[in-house]
Amino acid sequence: MYPFRQGSFAPKNCWYVVANRQDVGRELLGRTVVNTPLVIWRTQGGEAVVLDGRCPHRHFPLAKSQLEGDTVRCGYHGFVFDASGQCVEVPSQDHAPRACRVRRYPALEHGLWLWVWVGDEDKADPALLPPLSEIGLEGEGLTGTPLIRREAACRYQLLNDNLFDLSHLAFLHGSSIGTRENASTPEELVKRPGFVSSIRRIRDAPVPATMWQAMDGYDRIDRAMGMHSYLPGFHAGTTEIAIPASHPTRGGERLMWNRVYHCITPCTPRTTLYHFAVAVAPGVDTAALKVALDPVIDEDVFASEEIEKIIALYDGDPPPELMVKSDTNAVEGRRMIQAMMDAESQGG
Amino acid sequence: MYPFRQGSFAPKNCWYVVANRQDVGRELLGRTVVNTPLVIWRTQGGEAVVLDGRCPHRHFPLAKSQLEGDTVRCGYHGFVFDASGQCVEVPSQDHAPRACRVRRYPALEHGLWLWVWVGDEDKADPALLPPLSEIGLEGEGLTGTPLIRREAACRYQLLNDNLFDLSHLAFLHGSSIGTRENASTPEELVKRPGFVSSIRRIRDAPVPATMWQAMDGYDRIDRAMGMHSYLPGFHAGTTEIAIPASHPTRGGERLMWNRVYHCITPCTPRTTLYHFAVAVAPGVDTAALKVALDPVIDEDVFASEEIEKIIALYDGDPPPELMVKSDTNAVEGRRMIQAMMDAESQGG
Amino acid sequence: MYPFRQGSFAPKNCWYVVANRQDVGRELLGRTVVNTPLVIWRTQGGEAVVLDGRCPHRHFPLAKSQLEGDTVRCGYHGFVFDASGQCVEVPSQDHAPRACRVRRYPALEHGLWLWVWVGDEDKADPALLPPLSEIGLEGEGLTGTPLIRREAACRYQLLNDNLFDLSHLAFLHGSSIGTRENASTPEELVKRPGFVSSIRRIRDAPVPATMWQAMDGYDRIDRAMGMHSYLPGFHAGTTEIAIPASHPTRGGERLMWNRVYHCITPCTPRTTLYHFAVAVAPGVDTAALKVALDPVIDEDVFASEEIEKIIALYDGDPPPELMVKSDTNAVEGRRMIQAMMDAESQGG
Repeated sequence: MYPFRQGSFAPKNCWYVVANRQDVGRELLGRTVVNTPLVIWRTQGGEAVVLDGRCPHRHFPLAKSQLEGDTVRCGYHGFVFDASGQCVEVPSQDHAPRACRVRRYPALEHGLWLWVWVGDEDKADPALLPPLSEIGLEGEGLTGTPLIRREAACRYQLLNDNLFDLSHLAFLHGSSIGTRENASTPEELVKRPGFVSSIRRIRDAPVPATMWQAMDGYDRIDRAMGMHSYLPGFHAGTTEIAIPASHPTRGGERLMWNRVYHCITPCTPRTTLYHFAVAVAPGVDTAALKVALDPVIDEDVFASEEIEKIIALYDGDPPPELMVKSDTNAVEGRRMIQAMMDAESQGG
Repeated sequence: MYPFRQGSFAPKNCWYVVANRQDVGRELLGRTVVNTPLVIWRTQGGEAVVLDGRCPHRHFPLAKSQLEGDTVRCGYHGFVFDASGQCVEVPSQDHAPRACRVRRYPALEHGLWLWVWVGDEDKADPALLPPLSEIGLEGEGLTGTPLIRREAACRYQLLNDNLFDLSHLAFLHGSSIGTRENASTPEELVKRPGFVSSIRRIRDAPVPATMWQAMDGYDRIDRAMGMHSYLPGFHAGTTEIAIPASHPTRGGERLMWNRVYHCITPCTPRTTLYHFAVAVAPGVDTAALKVALDPVIDEDVFASEEIEKIIALYDGDPPPELMVKSDTNAVEGRRMIQAMMDAESQGG
Repeated sequence: MYPFRQGSFAPKNCWYVVANRQDVGRELLGRTVVNTPLVIWRTQGGEAVVLDGRCPHRHFPLAKSQLEGDTVRCGYHGFVFDASGQCVEVPSQDHAPRACRVRRYPALEHGLWLWVWVGDEDKADPALLPPLSEIGLEGEGLTGTPLIRREAACRYQLLNDNLFDLSHLAFLHGSSIGTRENASTPEELVKRPGFVSSIRRIRDAPVPATMWQAMDGYDRIDRAMGMHSYLPGFHAGTTEIAIPASHPTRGGERLMWNRVYHCITPCTPRTTLYHFAVAVAPGVDTAALKVALDPVIDEDVFASEEIEKIIALYDGDPPPELMVKSDTNAVEGRRMIQAMMDAESQGG
C-alpha cells in the first residue's frame, strides 16, 4: 500500500516500541502491532511479558481479561496462560491441552520503552536496537521522560515521512517550534543500513515561538536541529541552541540541549501508535514541555490524518508524488523499509 | 464467514424471533433479518403482518412510513400496500400496477414472540417452532415477560457460541450470576436434529452474587443450570435451585425455578438482534430481575463485540480455534447450522 | 453503481455548482467534486480560482493551508502555488521545479454560484450553463439568495431522483409544502438534450401548510409547480400561485411567484453536496423562508440517506425498481446522465 508496493504494509522482523516502560505494570495493557493483538504485563518478579493477545479458544482479547499472579486468565471462559504463553488451566476440565498456548513475543526493555519483535523469533537480535549512547539516553547527563501517546487514524509511513523531512517545522509548526530557517537551511545527511539522519545548522536566526523563555534574553540564536531515524519507526531528534558566534563575549555558548524521541508503530494498515518522549538537562520543567509540545504532536497527527483522507479519494492509490531535494531521506527511508518487507516475503 | 464456511452467513429456511409480541401494534416496526429489510405491524383485526420493508418503487423503507388502517403508505411517494403486500394505490395515477407488490413473509405469534420465515415460503412449517411445553411457557405455572432487547455489533454466531458454552458464567459473569462451579461441573448433553442441550447439576455450592436475596438465608445450594438450544437461534435456559440434600430437614426443597430465553437473530453479516425474556413463578419481581440481568446481557454483548474486533484484524479469517470438551455443543451446533445453509444452497 | 451501470459514478464533462459565490472570498474553501479534492479562493483582483486541492508533494490538502496574496502556501512543507496552479516556491531550495504544479479547473461565476468543470478542459463550454433568463435570475424582477447547504451521506442520484419526481411533495412533505394534489395532478413534461422538466397545474385546491401566511386569506388556490432539470445536477423549480378562476372578481390574480434552485453535486460515490437557493419578489422575507424550508430539505436528505442504507443491505445492487408514469423524468434523466458517462468513457 502507498507509499509502498501493493501488498506491502509493514516489516515484522524488527523492534517496535509497544509501550512506555513506566506504563508496563500490574494492569494488563492491550496493543496491536502489525495486525497482531498483544497483551502486556509485568510479572511479580519485574519482567515485562508480551503474549499474543487472542485467546486461542474463542479469540477473546486477553488484554480485557484478568491478571492473576504471573498468569493471565481469559475473561470469557477462564483459560489461564502463564508468562511463557502455555495454557495451564482450562476450568471446565482437569487438564489443559499441551497444544493450548499463545505465542510469547521477544520483548526488551531498552531506554524508556518496551520493544517487541512480532516477526521470526530467531531473528530477534538485541543488537538491532538503537544504542542508548547514540540516542543520548546514556553519557550526556540528560534525563528521559515519556510525554505523549497518541493513536493516529492513518498509516504509519505518513508519520515516518513527517519525520524524514523536517522542513515541515517551518510551516506546520510555524507558530510553535519552527521558523522559516528550518526549511531554507541546507541539510547534512548521513545514511547507513537501516538508518538515515539529517542535521540543519541554522546560524544567527530568530527564536521559535515556544523557545523564548529558555533563551536568556537572546533574540537571535544558532540552532542545530537533527533527526536520526532508526528504521522502520524510531526517530531520535536533537536540538542544540547556542549564542551566535558574532556575539562579542559569549559567542558559541550553549543555551539549550535536548533530545526528543518519536516512536512510530504500525497497528493496522490505517492506524498507528505514536509514543513521544524527551530527554532534558537537569532542571528543565518537563510538565511545561508537555504543555508546549502537545499541540505540536497534534499538528503532526492532523497533517498525517488529513493526507490519509485525501488518499482515500483515490481508493488508496494516489497520483505519483513530486519529489524535491529535501525528500532525500524520505526516498531513502522508504526504500530501506520496502527492502525489509521484500526480504521477509522472500523468506530472507 | 467465520465460524462457517466462506460464503455462508445464515440460514433462511427457519423461524427467527423478529419482535416481542407485545411490541407489535399500531406503530410500524422496522427490522432486518438475514439482510432482508422488514416492516411489521398489527392489523385492526389483531393480526401481525410482516412485509418486505423496501418499497419496490424507490427502495424507501416502509418502516419509516405511515400506517393507514390495515395498509401502509410509503413515506416517500405515497404508494399504499395492503396486508398481503399488494400495492393498492399509486397516488400519481388512477390504477396501481398488479406487478407492484412486496413479499409478505410467513409470521407466527408463538410464546412471547413474533417469528418470521424469510426463506422459501412453502417450507415454513409451524411444527419447526420450539414447543411451548418444552420451553416452559405452558404447563409449569410460570409467567413469561420480555425483558431486554439489544442490537449487537457482531455476527450472530458469536452470541450463539456464547450460549452453547455456559462455562463462561464462571468468568464473564463471575461477579453476577456465575460461580466457578459453572465451569467445573460436568455437563449432561443431549442432541437431536436441530437441537442441542446441556445441563450442569451443581451440588452444595456457593450462591452467585445476584441470587442471594432469593435464597432464604441459605449460603450453599444445589443449582441445576440448563440451556436448550433450538437452532439456529433460540436458546431456552433453565435454573432450578434447591436446598442441598445434606440439610437435615429441608434437603432437596426447591427455592427457585425459572426460565430464560435468548433469541439470536442475524440482521446483517456483522449485526445481530438479541431478545431476552424470562418466565418466572408467581410473585417474582421481574422489574428487579431486569435490573439484575441487564448488566449480564451487556457482558455477553461486550464479549461478542470484542471478538468481532479481534476477527477484523485477520480480515475476517482468524486462526483455527482450539476446541476443548466444553465446546461439544458449539461444535455440534455450528455443524448443524452449516448443514442448514448447505441444504439451502443446494436447493434442498 | 446503482442506478447507473456498474462502474459508472458521475459525469465529469459538465458544470457542477461547487460553492455559493458569496462564500468564495479570502478564506480557502475545500470541496470534493467527483472524487477530486479542490481548493477555492478569490484573488485580490476578485477572480474566483479553483485548483486541484492535493499538494503534489505529499498529498496534503491545500484547503487546510494558507492564502498569501494571490497564492496558496501548503500548510505542510510550505510549497507555494499561484492562481494558475504553478508552484512558485519550494522553501527548502532555491528554485521550484517547473513540473511542480496543480491543475487549475475551469470555473465560472454564474447566477448565485461558482461552477466548476473537473473533466476535459477543452470541452468546458460556458454555453452549457443554464441560461439565467431561463431559470428566472434575469428578467423576472426576482432576487436570488442562497439559503441552505448540506452534505448528504448518499449518492447524488438519489437526490436527483427526488427532484425528478415531485409527487413526493404530497407525502414526504405532506405536512409542509405539499398536498395530495402534488401527486394526483397530471404532469406536463418537456425534454430536450440534457434537460427534462415537469409542471403540474393544480386548480382550485387546498393551501399547503407552509404557505398560509402568503395567501391573503384565500383557502383554495391555483398552484403551478414546476421543476426544470439541467443535467446532471441543477434543478430550477417554479411556484406560481393564483386566485382560482372561479372567483367572481379576482379570478386568476397572482398571489405568489418564486423560484427555487437545487444544486446537486457528487462528492464521493456515497456523499453529495447540496446547495439550495431561492429567488423571490421584492419584500419577501427570505429569513422566514429559510426557517420554513430548512426542514423540507432535511426531509429530502433523510429520504435519500435512508434509501442509501437500504441499498447497502444488497451490497449496492438492489432489486430492480418498479417504474410508474410519474417516473418518466427519472427514467429519462438517468438515461441522459448514463449517456454522458458512456460518452466520456469512450473518449467521446
